[in-house]
Amino acid sequence: MSQISKPYSAILDFKSGIIKAFKRRVQVKLSGLREFFSDRKEVDQILSTGEDPIIYEYFEHSQPEVEGHINFGVTTIYPGKVGKEYHLTRGHYHAKENAAEVYIGITGEGIMIMQTKDEEVAHLPIRPGDVVYVPPFWAHRTVNVGKQKLSFFYAYPSDAGHDYEVIRQKGFAKLVIEEKGQPKVVDNPKFIKS
Amino acid sequence: MSQISKPYSAILDFKSGIIKAFKRRVQVKLSGLREFFSDRKEVDQILSTGEDPIIYEYFEHSQPEVEGHINFGVTTIYPGKVGKEYHLTRGHYHAKENAAEVYIGITGEGIMIMQTKDEEVAHLPIRPGDVVYVPPFWAHRTVNVGKQKLSFFYAYPSDAGHDYEVIRQKGFAKLVIEEKGQPKVVDNPKFIKS
Repeated sequence: MSQISKPYSAILDFKSGIIKAFKRRVQVKLSGLREFFSDRKEVDQILSTGEDPIIYEYFEHSQPEVEGHINFGVTTIYPGKVGKEYHLTRGHYHAKENAAEVYIGITGEGIMIMQTKDEEVAHLPIRPGDVVYVPPFWAHRTVNVGKQKLSFFYAYPSDAGHDYEVIRQKGFAKLVIEEKGQPKVVDNPKFIKS
Repeated sequence: MSQISKPYSAILDFKSGIIKAFKRRVQVKLSGLREFFSDRKEVDQILSTGEDPIIYEYFEHSQPEVEGHINFGVTTIYPGKVGKEYHLTRGHYHAKENAAEVYIGITGEGIMIMQTKDEEVAHLPIRPGDVVYVPPFWAHRTVNVGKQKLSFFYAYPSDAGHDYEVIRQKGFAKLVIEEKGQPKVVDNPKFIKS
């Protein structure tokens, strides 16, 4: 108990979705998502123009990676599509698979898609005030289906870790695409079952 | 993995601090806080009139009490004082002491007082948008120092448990009282060191 962390606070603006005094800011650009979007030709087409837009970023309050601590922060996904598919996060299982996560929608309009390795799937809207509970064992990806930026607060055990590789290799069972101007959750034809 | 919980969502109203579709609502009345307020004569005086006001309540989304799950909810502390001391929660250590907690102020104006068994003390304001990180090993109590209800969102590991007994027996090192119309954090003359 000699290295007890000190309490502290950060400020979250419910209007803008901005969290201040974060410890770590990570920007994820299109080039880093090449294997996560379904239309790779479209990704390559955009990148070939010399553009590499930021698709999402997160502002994290990271704690020590030991049991009992909680990491929290805000993720912002910028609006847009790659082909028919809306901007998305890579999505992940937790490396420690029995770790849950809580999300709170702050700005914008999104859909969370979730799945287990037992092939269960689920999706839920995430809008301002939606508190989404992602139980242990569920991979989760967030998709911005609106015209504004989608910002949400998240909190998860700091020793949970992230497994992006399963998603990189196998994808999500569902995609969120625009059809006739509306978001639609459809089967991913390229999904590889575990 | 046969009993995997399903993802779900709840709605939190950032204006009112109300969370919908909670699983458990707990009201804590003055009579249940007799040993937690510093002025017990004043508590008994109020109770002797036949009044037993609700001091605070919480609306909880409880998950299974196993490692990896996260309980969350909203606590609302109604405004007022008992003697000079502002309305407060009992405050607790987690039974599993290495469990952190994250708070987000939604409505009203409060102060969180915190302490460790090593006699470290801390206090931080909690107002709308304040995200307060209570690290592992810190007891925490929230006090409503404003004229409106104080509501805050909280999230903590569902297997953390609550130890109210240490606080019941020894108190907090600090009290939050009104002095010349302003909140002030002062030493608790009755505090018993661990």
